[in-house]
Amino acid sequence: MTRVRVDLNISLDGFATTEDGTPENPFGEDWARLTADYVATRTFHERVLHDTSGAGTTGVDDNYAARYFEGVTAEIMGAGMFGLHLYGDDPDWRGWWGDAPPFGYPVYVLTHRPRPSLEFDNGTRFEFLEASPAEGLALAREAAAGGDVRIGGGATTVRDFLRAGLVDDLHVAIVPILLGRGIRLWDDLRGFEAGRRVTSESAPSGVTHVSFERESDR
Amino acid sequence: MTRVRVDLNISLDGFATTEDGTPENPFGEDWARLTADYVATRTFHERVLHDTSGAGTTGVDDNYAARYFEGVTAEIMGAGMFGLHLYGDDPDWRGWWGDAPPFGYPVYVLTHRPRPSLEFDNGTRFEFLEASPAEGLALAREAAAGGDVRIGGGATTVRDFLRAGLVDDLHVAIVPILLGRGIRLWDDLRGFEAGRRVTSESAPSGVTHVSFERESDR
Ligand SMILES: NC(=O)c1ccc[n+]([C@@H]2O[C@H](COP(=O)([O-])OP(=O)(O)OC[C@H]3O[C@@H](n4cnc5c(N)ncnc54)[C@H](OP(=O)(O)O)[C@@H]3O)[C@@H](O)[C@H]2O)c1
Ligand SMILES: NC(=O)c1ccc[n+]([C@@H]2O[C@H](COP(=O)([O-])OP(=O)(O)OC[C@H]3O[C@@H](n4cnc5c(N)ncnc54)[C@H](OP(=O)(O)O)[C@@H]3O)[C@@H](O)[C@H]2O)c1
Repeated sequence: MTRVRVDLNISLDGFATTEDGTPENPFGEDWARLTADYVATRTFHERVLHDTSGAGTTGVDDNYAARYFEGVTAEIMGAGMFGLHLYGDDPDWRGWWGDAPPFGYPVYVLTHRPRPSLEFDNGTRFEFLEASPAEGLALAREAAAGGDVRIGGGATTVRDFLRAGLVDDLHVAIVPILLGRGIRLWDDLRGFEAGRRVTSESAPSGVTHVSFERESDR
Repeated sequence: MTRVRVDLNISLDGFATTEDGTPENPFGEDWARLTADYVATRTFHERVLHDTSGAGTTGVDDNYAARYFEGVTAEIMGAGMFGLHLYGDDPDWRGWWGDAPPFGYPVYVLTHRPRPSLEFDNGTRFEFLEASPAEGLALAREAAAGGDVRIGGGATTVRDFLRAGLVDDLHVAIVPILLGRGIRLWDDLRGFEAGRRVTSESAPSGVTHVSFERESDR
Protein backbone atom coordinates (compact mmCIF):
# COMPACT_ATOMS: atom_id res chain seq x y z
CA MET A 1 0.00 0.00 0.00
CA THR A 2 1.22 3.45 -0.87
CA ARG A 3 2.78 5.44 1.96
CA VAL A 4 3.19 9.17 1.72
CA ARG A 5 6.69 9.98 2.96
CA VAL A 6 8.82 12.93 3.85
CA ASP A 7 12.56 12.98 4.57
CA LEU A 8 14.24 16.20 5.64
CA ASN A 9 17.45 17.48 7.16
CA ILE A 10 16.83 19.99 9.89
CA SER A 11 18.97 21.84 12.39
CA LEU A 12 18.62 21.14 16.09
CA ASP A 13 16.64 24.35 16.39
CA GLY A 14 14.21 23.06 13.78
CA PHE A 15 15.09 24.98 10.64
CA ALA A 16 14.60 23.29 7.29
CA THR A 17 15.91 26.11 5.12
CA THR A 18 19.03 28.23 5.09
CA GLU A 19 19.35 31.86 4.18
CA ASP A 20 22.94 32.57 3.29
CA GLY A 21 22.73 31.65 -0.40
CA THR A 22 24.22 34.11 -2.90
CA PRO A 23 24.05 34.25 -6.72
CA GLU A 24 27.53 32.65 -6.85
CA ASN A 25 26.76 30.05 -4.19
CA PRO A 26 22.97 29.60 -4.28
CA PHE A 27 22.97 26.88 -1.61
CA GLY A 28 25.32 28.63 0.81
CA GLU A 29 27.50 27.46 3.67
CA ASP A 30 24.68 26.66 6.07
CA TRP A 31 23.12 24.28 3.55
CA ALA A 32 26.49 22.57 3.21
CA ARG A 33 26.64 22.11 6.99
CA LEU A 34 23.03 20.94 7.17
CA THR A 35 23.52 18.25 4.53
CA ALA A 36 27.20 17.34 5.00
CA ASP A 37 26.64 13.95 6.61
CA TYR A 38 23.97 12.99 4.06
CA VAL A 39 26.08 14.13 1.12
CA ALA A 40 28.98 12.10 2.55
CA THR A 41 27.07 8.80 2.36
CA ARG A 42 27.79 6.12 -0.20
CA THR A 43 24.14 6.21 -1.24
CA PHE A 44 24.31 9.90 -2.06
CA HIS A 45 27.52 9.33 -4.00
CA GLU A 46 25.89 6.57 -6.04
CA ARG A 47 22.37 7.90 -6.50
CA VAL A 48 22.94 11.62 -6.84
CA LEU A 49 26.57 12.05 -7.89
CA HIS A 50 26.59 8.87 -10.06
CA ASP A 51 29.89 7.98 -8.41
CA THR A 52 30.05 4.19 -8.33
CA SER A 53 33.64 4.03 -7.10
CA GLY A 54 32.48 2.87 -3.68
CA ALA A 55 33.28 6.25 -2.12
CA GLY A 56 31.18 7.51 0.74
CA THR A 57 30.33 6.55 4.31
CA THR A 58 28.43 3.44 5.26
CA GLY A 59 26.66 3.11 8.58
CA VAL A 60 23.69 4.74 10.22
CA ASP A 61 23.48 7.85 8.03
CA ASP A 62 23.87 5.72 4.91
CA ASN A 63 21.13 3.32 6.03
CA TYR A 64 18.68 6.20 6.18
CA ALA A 65 19.93 7.61 2.89
CA ALA A 66 19.30 4.23 1.26
CA ARG A 67 15.79 4.05 2.68
CA TYR A 68 15.19 7.49 1.24
CA PHE A 69 15.51 6.05 -2.24
CA GLU A 70 13.69 2.76 -1.59
CA GLY A 71 10.20 2.12 -2.82
CA VAL A 72 9.34 5.63 -4.00
CA THR A 73 7.64 5.66 -7.41
CA ALA A 74 6.26 9.20 -7.60
CA GLU A 75 7.13 12.51 -5.98
CA ILE A 76 5.73 15.95 -5.31
CA MET A 77 7.83 19.04 -4.84
CA GLY A 78 7.34 22.79 -4.69
CA ALA A 79 8.38 25.40 -7.24
CA GLY A 80 11.08 26.61 -4.86
CA MET A 81 12.79 23.25 -4.59
CA PHE A 82 12.74 22.79 -8.35
CA GLY A 83 14.51 26.15 -8.65
CA LEU A 84 11.70 28.16 -10.24
CA HIS A 85 11.91 30.92 -7.65
CA LEU A 86 15.45 31.62 -8.84
CA TYR A 87 15.40 30.47 -12.46
CA GLY A 88 11.69 30.49 -13.38
CA ASP A 89 12.23 33.16 -16.02
CA ASP A 90 14.54 30.87 -17.95
CA PRO A 91 12.42 28.60 -20.19
CA ASP A 92 15.38 26.18 -20.48
CA TRP A 93 15.75 25.55 -16.73
CA ARG A 94 15.59 21.79 -16.14
CA GLY A 95 16.25 21.63 -12.39
CA TRP A 96 19.43 21.24 -10.35
CA TRP A 97 20.14 17.63 -11.14
CA GLY A 98 21.74 17.48 -14.60
CA ASP A 99 20.91 14.88 -17.24
CA ALA A 100 19.94 12.05 -14.91
CA PRO A 101 17.89 13.46 -12.02
CA PRO A 102 17.86 11.02 -9.11
CA PHE A 103 14.18 10.12 -9.43
CA GLY A 104 13.40 7.83 -12.38
CA TYR A 105 9.66 8.37 -11.97
CA PRO A 106 7.10 11.16 -12.33
CA VAL A 107 7.69 14.25 -10.22
CA TYR A 108 4.82 16.71 -9.80
CA VAL A 109 6.05 20.25 -9.28
CA LEU A 110 3.42 22.45 -7.66
CA THR A 111 3.51 25.97 -9.06
CA HIS A 112 1.24 28.85 -9.90
CA ARG A 113 3.12 29.24 -13.19
CA PRO A 114 2.82 25.86 -14.93
CA ARG A 115 5.21 25.10 -17.81
CA PRO A 116 5.62 22.19 -20.26
CA SER A 117 6.65 18.79 -18.86
CA LEU A 118 10.26 17.65 -19.01
CA GLU A 119 11.32 14.08 -19.81
CA PHE A 120 14.69 12.47 -19.07
CA ASP A 121 16.17 9.22 -20.37
CA ASN A 122 16.24 7.65 -16.92
CA GLY A 123 12.48 7.74 -16.58
CA THR A 124 12.27 11.00 -14.65
CA ARG A 125 9.39 13.18 -15.84
CA PHE A 126 8.65 16.58 -14.30
CA GLU A 127 5.08 17.79 -14.59
CA PHE A 128 4.20 21.28 -13.46
CA LEU A 129 0.79 21.88 -12.08
CA GLU A 130 -1.38 24.15 -10.02
CA ALA A 131 -3.29 21.97 -7.59
CA SER A 132 -4.12 21.70 -3.90
CA PRO A 133 -1.98 19.32 -1.84
CA ALA A 134 -4.83 16.77 -1.84
CA GLU A 135 -5.34 17.02 -5.60
CA GLY A 136 -1.63 16.81 -6.31
CA LEU A 137 -1.41 13.80 -4.03
CA ALA A 138 -4.29 12.05 -5.81
CA LEU A 139 -2.41 12.39 -9.10
CA ALA A 140 0.88 11.24 -7.60
CA ARG A 141 -0.78 8.28 -5.88
CA GLU A 142 -2.22 7.12 -9.17
CA ALA A 143 1.14 7.51 -10.90
CA ALA A 144 2.87 5.67 -8.05
CA ALA A 145 0.81 2.57 -8.85
CA GLY A 146 1.16 1.08 -5.40
CA GLY A 147 4.66 2.39 -4.67
CA ASP A 148 5.30 5.19 -2.22
CA VAL A 149 4.86 8.88 -2.85
CA ARG A 150 7.50 11.22 -1.52
CA ILE A 151 6.83 14.84 -0.70
CA GLY A 152 10.36 15.90 -1.57
CA GLY A 153 10.39 19.52 -0.40
CA GLY A 154 10.95 22.33 0.05
CA ALA A 155 10.05 23.40 3.50
CA THR A 156 6.85 25.24 2.59
CA THR A 157 5.40 22.39 0.56
CA VAL A 158 6.30 19.78 3.16
CA ARG A 159 4.69 21.85 5.88
CA ASP A 160 1.51 22.24 3.81
CA PHE A 161 1.25 18.47 3.46
CA LEU A 162 2.09 17.81 7.10
CA ARG A 163 -0.49 20.25 8.38
CA ALA A 164 -3.11 18.84 6.02
CA GLY A 165 -2.54 15.43 7.64
CA LEU A 166 -1.48 13.92 4.32
CA VAL A 167 1.88 12.50 5.40
CA ASP A 168 2.12 8.95 6.75
CA ASP A 169 5.83 8.72 7.48
CA LEU A 170 8.21 11.50 8.42
CA HIS A 171 11.95 11.01 8.82
CA VAL A 172 14.06 13.92 9.99
CA ALA A 173 17.82 13.90 10.18
CA ILE A 174 18.57 16.33 12.99
CA VAL A 175 21.94 17.97 12.60
CA PRO A 176 23.39 19.29 15.87
CA ILE A 177 23.93 22.86 14.71
CA LEU A 178 21.88 25.94 15.54
CA LEU A 179 20.98 27.94 12.46
CA GLY A 180 18.81 30.48 14.24
CA ARG A 181 16.82 31.48 11.14
CA GLY A 182 14.87 30.07 8.23
CA ILE A 183 11.59 28.16 7.98
CA ARG A 184 10.78 26.18 11.11
CA LEU A 185 9.60 22.69 10.24
CA TRP A 186 7.63 22.12 13.43
CA ASP A 187 5.39 25.18 13.76
CA ASP A 188 1.70 24.36 14.29
CA LEU A 189 2.24 20.61 14.48
CA ARG A 190 1.39 20.05 18.15
CA GLY A 191 0.46 16.40 18.67
CA PHE A 192 1.83 15.20 15.31
CA GLU A 193 3.21 12.14 17.12
CA ALA A 194 -0.27 10.87 18.06
CA GLY A 195 -1.03 7.61 16.27
CA ARG A 196 2.53 7.36 14.99
CA ARG A 197 5.29 5.01 16.02
CA VAL A 198 8.39 7.04 16.86
CA THR A 199 11.97 5.83 16.70
CA SER A 200 15.21 7.74 17.32
CA GLU A 201 18.69 6.69 16.27
CA SER A 202 21.88 8.71 16.61
CA ALA A 203 24.73 8.26 14.18
CA PRO A 204 28.41 8.61 15.05
CA SER A 205 28.36 11.76 12.89
CA GLY A 206 26.22 13.39 15.60
CA VAL A 207 23.13 13.38 13.40
CA THR A 208 20.01 11.92 15.01
CA HIS A 209 17.40 10.24 12.85
CA VAL A 210 13.87 10.53 14.19
CA SER A 211 11.09 8.69 12.35
CA PHE A 212 7.34 8.95 12.79
CA GLU A 213 5.39 6.18 11.09
CA ARG A 214 1.63 6.31 10.99
CA GLU A 215 0.17 3.19 12.50
CA SER A 216 -2.07 1.43 10.03
CA ASP A 217 -5.79 1.73 10.67
CA ARG A 218 -6.35 -1.69 12.11
CA MET B 1 37.96 23.16 37.42
CA THR B 2 34.41 24.33 37.80
CA ARG B 3 32.15 23.77 34.79
CA VAL B 4 28.89 25.64 34.45
CA ARG B 5 26.29 23.12 33.38
CA VAL B 6 22.72 22.97 32.18
CA ASP B 7 20.51 19.90 31.78
CA LEU B 8 17.04 20.25 30.32
CA ASN B 9 14.23 18.19 28.89
CA ILE B 10 12.84 19.68 25.72
CA SER B 11 10.30 18.61 23.15
CA LEU B 12 11.41 17.87 19.60
CA ASP B 13 10.05 21.26 18.59
CA GLY B 14 12.30 22.88 21.17
CA PHE B 15 9.97 23.83 24.00
CA ALA B 16 11.32 23.79 27.55
CA THR B 17 8.10 24.76 29.30
CA THR B 18 4.55 23.51 29.23
CA GLU B 19 1.37 25.51 29.53
CA ASP B 20 -1.42 23.19 30.58
CA GLY B 21 -0.90 23.43 34.35
CA THR B 22 -3.96 24.11 36.49
CA PRO B 23 -4.32 24.97 40.20
CA GLU B 24 -5.14 21.29 40.89
CA ASN B 25 -2.36 19.95 38.65
CA PRO B 26 0.26 22.72 38.51
CA PHE B 27 2.67 20.71 36.36
CA GLY B 28 0.08 19.44 33.88
CA GLU B 29 -0.04 16.55 31.45
CA ASP B 30 2.50 17.93 29.00
CA TRP B 31 5.10 18.21 31.75
CA ALA B 32 4.43 14.59 32.65
CA ARG B 33 5.04 13.56 29.04
CA LEU B 34 8.14 15.73 28.76
CA THR B 35 9.77 14.23 31.84
CA ALA B 36 8.34 10.69 31.85
CA ASP B 37 11.52 8.90 30.78
CA TYR B 38 13.65 10.90 33.22
CA VAL B 39 11.21 10.36 36.10
CA ALA B 40 11.23 6.64 35.27
CA THR B 41 14.98 6.28 35.87
CA ARG B 42 16.45 4.58 38.90
CA THR B 43 18.49 7.71 39.61
CA PHE B 44 15.36 9.86 39.80
CA HIS B 45 13.73 7.27 42.07
CA GLU B 46 16.72 7.33 44.40
CA ARG B 47 17.73 10.97 44.33
CA VAL B 48 14.40 12.74 44.09
CA LEU B 49 11.79 10.26 45.33
CA HIS B 50 14.10 8.77 47.99
CA ASP B 51 12.98 5.35 46.81
CA THR B 52 15.91 3.01 47.38
CA SER B 53 14.00 -0.16 46.49
CA GLY B 54 15.93 -0.48 43.24
CA ALA B 55 12.90 0.59 41.21
CA GLY B 56 13.42 2.51 38.00
CA THR B 57 15.00 2.03 34.60
CA THR B 58 18.69 1.59 34.05
CA GLY B 59 20.32 2.26 30.70
CA VAL B 60 20.94 5.31 28.56
CA ASP B 61 18.38 7.64 30.17
CA ASP B 62 19.58 6.63 33.63
CA ASN B 63 23.22 7.24 32.70
CA TYR B 64 22.41 10.83 31.85
CA ALA B 65 20.24 11.19 34.96
CA ALA B 66 23.17 10.00 37.07
CA ARG B 67 25.54 12.47 35.41
CA TYR B 68 23.03 15.18 36.19
CA PHE B 69 23.69 14.67 39.90
CA GLU B 70 27.44 14.09 39.64
CA GLY B 71 29.94 16.73 40.69
CA VAL B 72 27.55 19.64 41.18
CA THR B 73 28.23 21.59 44.37
CA ALA B 74 26.22 24.77 43.85
CA GLU B 75 23.21 25.73 41.77
CA ILE B 76 21.36 28.73 40.42
CA MET B 77 17.68 28.75 39.61
CA GLY B 78 14.99 31.31 38.78
CA ALA B 79 12.07 32.40 40.93
CA GLY B 80 9.70 30.56 38.59
CA MET B 81 11.38 27.21 39.03
CA PHE B 82 11.44 27.60 42.80
CA GLY B 83 7.68 28.20 42.67
CA LEU B 84 7.62 31.87 43.67
CA HIS B 85 5.52 32.87 40.68
CA LEU B 86 2.74 30.64 42.01
CA TYR B 87 3.36 30.64 45.76
CA GLY B 88 5.48 33.76 46.34
CA ASP B 89 2.79 35.31 48.53
CA ASP B 90 3.07 32.44 51.01
CA PRO B 91 5.94 33.20 53.43
CA ASP B 92 6.07 29.50 54.36
CA TRP B 93 6.68 28.21 50.81
CA ARG B 94 9.83 26.05 50.86
CA GLY B 95 9.90 24.81 47.25
CA TRP B 96 8.50 21.70 45.58
CA TRP B 97 10.90 19.19 47.03
CA GLY B 98 9.75 18.39 50.57
CA ASP B 99 12.08 18.00 53.55
CA ALA B 100 15.10 16.73 51.66
CA PRO B 101 15.48 18.71 48.42
CA PRO B 102 17.70 16.82 45.98
CA PHE B 103 20.58 19.28 46.15
CA GLY B 104 22.61 19.09 49.36
CA TYR B 105 24.48 22.32 48.55
CA PRO B 106 23.74 26.04 48.23
CA VAL B 107 21.12 26.99 45.68
CA TYR B 108 20.91 30.64 44.62
CA VAL B 109 17.39 31.63 43.61
CA LEU B 110 17.34 34.73 41.43
CA THR B 111 14.36 36.93 42.22
CA HIS B 112 13.35 40.55 42.37
CA ARG B 113 11.62 39.84 45.67
CA PRO B 114 14.33 38.41 47.94
CA ARG B 115 13.27 36.53 51.10
CA PRO B 116 15.11 34.92 54.02
CA SER B 117 17.34 31.91 53.31
CA LEU B 118 16.07 28.38 53.95
CA GLU B 119 18.20 25.60 55.42
CA PHE B 120 17.55 21.85 55.25
CA ASP B 121 19.15 19.02 57.19
CA ASN B 122 20.66 17.48 54.09
CA GLY B 123 22.87 20.48 53.42
CA THR B 124 20.57 22.20 50.96
CA ARG B 125 20.45 25.95 51.52
CA PHE B 126 18.30 28.26 49.37
CA GLU B 127 19.46 31.86 49.15
CA PHE B 128 17.29 34.39 47.38
CA LEU B 129 18.99 37.24 45.63
CA GLU B 130 18.65 39.92 43.07
CA ALA B 131 21.74 39.79 40.88
CA SER B 132 22.77 39.67 37.25
CA PRO B 133 23.58 36.26 35.80
CA ALA B 134 27.31 37.04 35.98
CA GLU B 135 27.08 38.23 39.60
CA GLY B 136 24.98 35.25 40.63
CA LEU B 137 27.45 32.94 38.93
CA ALA B 138 30.41 34.53 40.73
CA LEU B 139 28.73 33.78 44.07
CA ALA B 140 27.82 30.25 43.06
CA ARG B 141 31.31 29.57 41.73
CA GLU B 142 32.80 30.60 45.03
CA ALA B 143 30.34 28.43 46.95
CA ALA B 144 31.02 25.50 44.60
CA ALA B 145 34.67 25.48 45.75
CA GLY B 146 35.95 23.77 42.64
CA GLY B 147 32.88 21.62 42.00
CA ASP B 148 30.48 22.30 39.16
CA VAL B 149 27.73 24.90 39.13
CA ARG B 150 24.41 23.95 37.64
CA ILE B 151 21.98 26.44 36.17
CA GLY B 152 18.95 24.39 37.12
CA GLY B 153 16.15 26.26 35.36
CA GLY B 154 13.66 27.37 34.50
CA ALA B 155 13.61 28.12 30.85
CA THR B 156 13.98 31.89 31.19
CA THR B 157 16.93 31.73 33.54
CA VAL B 158 18.71 29.07 31.49
CA ARG B 159 18.26 31.12 28.33
CA ASP B 160 19.66 34.22 30.05
CA PHE B 161 22.81 32.30 31.01
CA LEU B 162 23.13 30.63 27.61
CA ARG B 163 22.83 33.88 25.72
CA ALA B 164 25.32 35.56 28.07
CA GLY B 165 27.84 32.86 27.09
CA LEU B 166 28.13 31.70 30.71
CA VAL B 167 27.34 28.00 30.16
CA ASP B 168 30.15 25.54 29.44
CA ASP B 169 28.19 22.31 29.07
CA LEU B 170 24.63 21.87 27.89
CA HIS B 171 22.83 18.54 27.88
CA VAL B 172 19.34 18.34 26.43
CA ALA B 173 17.13 15.29 26.57
CA ILE B 174 15.00 15.65 23.46
CA VAL B 175 11.64 13.98 23.85
CA PRO B 176 10.00 13.03 20.53
CA ILE B 177 6.74 14.87 21.11
CA LEU B 178 5.57 18.14 19.59
CA LEU B 179 4.26 20.54 22.22
CA GLY B 180 3.68 23.44 19.84
CA ARG B 181 3.82 26.13 22.55
CA GLY B 182 5.85 27.35 25.48
CA ILE B 183 9.30 28.90 25.77
CA ARG B 184 11.65 27.87 22.98
CA LEU B 185 15.05 26.94 24.32
CA TRP B 186 16.95 27.66 21.12
CA ASP B 187 15.88 31.14 20.09
CA ASP B 188 18.79 33.52 19.39
CA LEU B 189 21.47 30.88 19.88
CA ARG B 190 22.74 30.61 16.30
CA GLY B 191 26.24 29.14 16.32
CA PHE B 192 26.10 27.94 19.94
CA GLU B 193 27.86 24.75 18.79
CA ALA B 194 31.03 26.64 17.79
CA GLY B 195 33.93 25.67 20.04
CA ARG B 196 31.90 22.90 21.64
CA ARG B 197 32.20 19.16 21.26
CA VAL B 198 28.82 17.72 20.35
CA THR B 199 27.62 14.19 21.02
CA SER B 200 24.23 12.62 20.36
CA GLU B 201 22.90 9.41 21.86
CA SER B 202 19.41 7.98 21.46
CA ALA B 203 17.85 5.85 24.17
CA PRO B 204 15.44 2.98 23.55
CA SER B 205 12.78 5.21 25.14
CA GLY B 206 12.98 7.40 22.03
CA VAL B 207 14.66 10.23 23.93
CA THR B 208 17.82 11.60 22.34
CA HIS B 209 20.53 13.07 24.52
CA VAL B 210 22.53 15.83 22.86
CA SER B 211 25.49 17.28 24.74
CA PHE B 212 27.56 20.35 23.95
CA GLU B 213 30.80 20.59 25.92
CA ARG B 214 32.93 23.69 25.68
CA GLU B 215 36.42 22.77 24.57
CA SER B 216 38.96 23.97 27.10
CA ASP B 217 41.00 26.96 26.07
CA ARG B 218 44.10 25.11 25.08
N1 LIG C 1 15.75 20.56 4.79
C1 LIG C 1 15.63 19.78 3.73
O1 LIG C 1 15.89 18.57 3.76
C2 LIG C 1 15.17 20.40 2.46
C3 LIG C 1 14.78 19.63 1.36
C4 LIG C 1 14.39 20.28 0.22
C5 LIG C 1 14.41 21.65 0.16
N2 LIG C 1 14.76 22.37 1.25
C6 LIG C 1 14.80 23.83 1.26
O2 LIG C 1 13.52 24.31 0.98
C7 LIG C 1 13.67 25.60 0.37
C8 LIG C 1 12.78 25.65 -0.86
O3 LIG C 1 11.52 25.47 -0.35
P1 LIG C 1 10.50 26.65 -0.22
O4 LIG C 1 9.84 26.44 1.06
O5 LIG C 1 11.17 27.96 -0.50
O6 LIG C 1 9.59 26.36 -1.49
P2 LIG C 1 8.89 25.03 -1.99
O7 LIG C 1 8.16 24.38 -0.88
O8 LIG C 1 9.84 24.19 -2.77
O9 LIG C 1 7.92 25.69 -3.01
C9 LIG C 1 6.87 26.52 -2.57
C10 LIG C 1 6.29 27.12 -3.82
O10 LIG C 1 5.68 26.09 -4.59
C11 LIG C 1 4.51 26.59 -5.19
N3 LIG C 1 3.39 25.88 -4.61
C12 LIG C 1 3.36 25.19 -3.42
N4 LIG C 1 2.16 24.67 -3.23
C13 LIG C 1 1.40 25.01 -4.31
C14 LIG C 1 0.07 24.73 -4.68
N5 LIG C 1 -0.74 24.00 -3.90
N6 LIG C 1 -0.38 25.23 -5.86
C15 LIG C 1 0.45 25.95 -6.64
N7 LIG C 1 1.71 26.25 -6.33
C16 LIG C 1 2.18 25.77 -5.19
C17 LIG C 1 4.48 28.07 -4.88
O11 LIG C 1 5.31 28.69 -5.85
P3 LIG C 1 4.83 29.68 -7.00
O12 LIG C 1 3.57 30.37 -6.50
O13 LIG C 1 6.00 30.61 -7.13
O14 LIG C 1 4.65 28.89 -8.20
C18 LIG C 1 5.20 28.13 -3.56
O15 LIG C 1 5.78 29.39 -3.32
C19 LIG C 1 15.11 25.78 0.03
O16 LIG C 1 15.65 26.66 1.01
C20 LIG C 1 15.68 24.39 0.18
O17 LIG C 1 17.02 24.43 0.61
C21 LIG C 1 15.14 21.77 2.39
N1 LIG D 1 12.58 21.70 30.55
C1 LIG D 1 13.18 21.53 31.71
O1 LIG D 1 14.00 20.63 31.90
C2 LIG D 1 12.85 22.47 32.81
C3 LIG D 1 13.60 22.52 33.99
C4 LIG D 1 13.21 23.40 34.97
C5 LIG D 1 12.11 24.20 34.80
N2 LIG D 1 11.42 24.13 33.64
C6 LIG D 1 10.24 24.97 33.40
O2 LIG D 1 10.59 26.31 33.49
C7 LIG D 1 9.42 27.03 33.87
C8 LIG D 1 9.79 27.95 34.98
O3 LIG D 1 10.73 28.79 34.44
P1 LIG D 1 10.42 30.27 34.02
O4 LIG D 1 11.10 30.45 32.72
O5 LIG D 1 8.96 30.54 34.11
O6 LIG D 1 11.08 31.04 35.24
P2 LIG D 1 12.52 30.90 35.88
O7 LIG D 1 13.57 30.94 34.86
O8 LIG D 1 12.56 29.79 36.88
O9 LIG D 1 12.49 32.23 36.71
C9 LIG D 1 12.48 33.49 36.05
C10 LIG D 1 12.24 34.51 37.12
O10 LIG D 1 13.36 34.53 38.00
C11 LIG D 1 13.61 35.83 38.42
N3 LIG D 1 14.89 36.23 37.87
C12 LIG D 1 15.54 35.66 36.82
N4 LIG D 1 16.70 36.29 36.61
C13 LIG D 1 16.80 37.25 37.55
C14 LIG D 1 17.77 38.22 37.86
N5 LIG D 1 18.91 38.30 37.15
N6 LIG D 1 17.55 39.06 38.91
C15 LIG D 1 16.41 38.96 39.63
N7 LIG D 1 15.44 38.07 39.38
C16 LIG D 1 15.64 37.22 38.34
C17 LIG D 1 12.48 36.68 37.86
O11 LIG D 1 11.39 36.53 38.77
P3 LIG D 1 10.77 37.68 39.69
O12 LIG D 1 11.05 39.00 38.99
O13 LIG D 1 9.32 37.34 39.78
O14 LIG D 1 11.43 37.57 41.02
C18 LIG D 1 12.11 35.92 36.62
O15 LIG D 1 10.78 36.15 36.20
C19 LIG D 1 8.38 26.04 34.29
O16 LIG D 1 7.46 25.96 33.21
C20 LIG D 1 9.17 24.76 34.41
O17 LIG D 1 8.37 23.65 34.09
C21 LIG D 1 11.78 23.30 32.65
